[in-house]
Amino acid sequence: MASPEIEALTQALSRLPGLGPRSARRAVLHLIKKREVALVPLLRALEQVSERLSTCGTCGNVDTTDPCGICADPRRDSRSLCVVEEVADLWALERSHLFPGRFHVLGGRLSALEGVRPEDLAIDRLVSRIAAGGIDEVVLAMNATLEGQTTAHYIADRLEGYPIRLTQLAHGLPVGGELDYLDEGTLAQALRARRPVA
Amino acid sequence: MASPEIEALTQALSRLPGLGPRSARRAVLHLIKKREVALVPLLRALEQVSERLSTCGTCGNVDTTDPCGICADPRRDSRSLCVVEEVADLWALERSHLFPGRFHVLGGRLSALEGVRPEDLAIDRLVSRIAAGGIDEVVLAMNATLEGQTTAHYIADRLEGYPIRLTQLAHGLPVGGELDYLDEGTLAQALRARRPVA
Ligand SMILES: [Zn+2]
Ligand SMILES: [Zn+2]
Repeated sequence: MASPEIEALTQALSRLPGLGPRSARRAVLHLIKKREVALVPLLRALEQVSERLSTCGTCGNVDTTDPCGICADPRRDSRSLCVVEEVADLWALERSHLFPGRFHVLGGRLSALEGVRPEDLAIDRLVSRIAAGGIDEVVLAMNATLEGQTTAHYIADRLEGYPIRLTQLAHGLPVGGELDYLDEGTLAQALRARRPVA
Repeated sequence: MASPEIEALTQALSRLPGLGPRSARRAVLHLIKKREVALVPLLRALEQVSERLSTCGTCGNVDTTDPCGICADPRRDSRSLCVVEEVADLWALERSHLFPGRFHVLGGRLSALEGVRPEDLAIDRLVSRIAAGGIDEVVLAMNATLEGQTTAHYIADRLEGYPIRLTQLAHGLPVGGELDYLDEGTLAQALRARRPVA
């Protein structure tokens, strides 16, 4: 048997999405063989993330400061708010430099199957931000999945009556497509053609 | 953009075998969202491996002690030596509890394509161990690949003239099969039917 240390590392890696037990074992071997160029950098990077990162209390982004760099940046358009499911979607939009406003991360999407209810997501906090005023447009940037669209409809209902322009990403997106997997061009087009929620 | 800490972690993970840039990003998100059950255990496991593990100077195994637990275990048959390409192969044989002797890890296989020469592997050290005496049988447990078999032939040549029984795993193994991917039954059969090198 490999040592308990190696078993523990194999287990921790095999719980990552995309890595099964077998590829986790390969990854461990790689980390051990390439200690200086693989294990040490991974360890340092994890330490940094663990020590320095926290969740922004305003928008749910993950950053070294709270409020995060986006919420604290005076050049960002504070009147425009983009609602996303996950931090990864925020990153995807930020990589494209397409959205000049600020964000709101829900932390997931409504799902009967997975038992995710409105109170499990940062929806109340979104309503509070909008009720506080100063926001003119809310862009719903949910994934083009059934659950993403259910979430968008639910949020649209909750925001009825507030003096905002409520839009959502145009659905030139492939059906079933997840934001995080799209190329920049597709994202750009979807954002340009965003339309009012019916 | 995500913070530099997140970019560094994404890069470190994307260099692992089996994880591309996209799945690395997903893994990072998972680590951040499930900090206590995913990030912290992975960090602790890496720290333990980094601090406690070293390579056995005798056999090339990775363990918390040097010599490793196998080399130091008086119940192991010191007269029988199993030569493997990688530490992962040693682990695979150990998981099966099939081999009562000790090991010698080459650290790879000869490969013209990848420029791996005899002096890049622990072959001289293998010859020294055998020249020192006390070993009756050497089992060549290379992968059933072209490179594995080339390596086995090269080692067989180098060990000519030493008073040992030189065997190799029976080739009931699937062609192109790698040891680390085989189930225990196949491994057991291959080991039982091991035969002298022609
Ligand atoms: Zn923020
Ligand atoms: Zn050893």
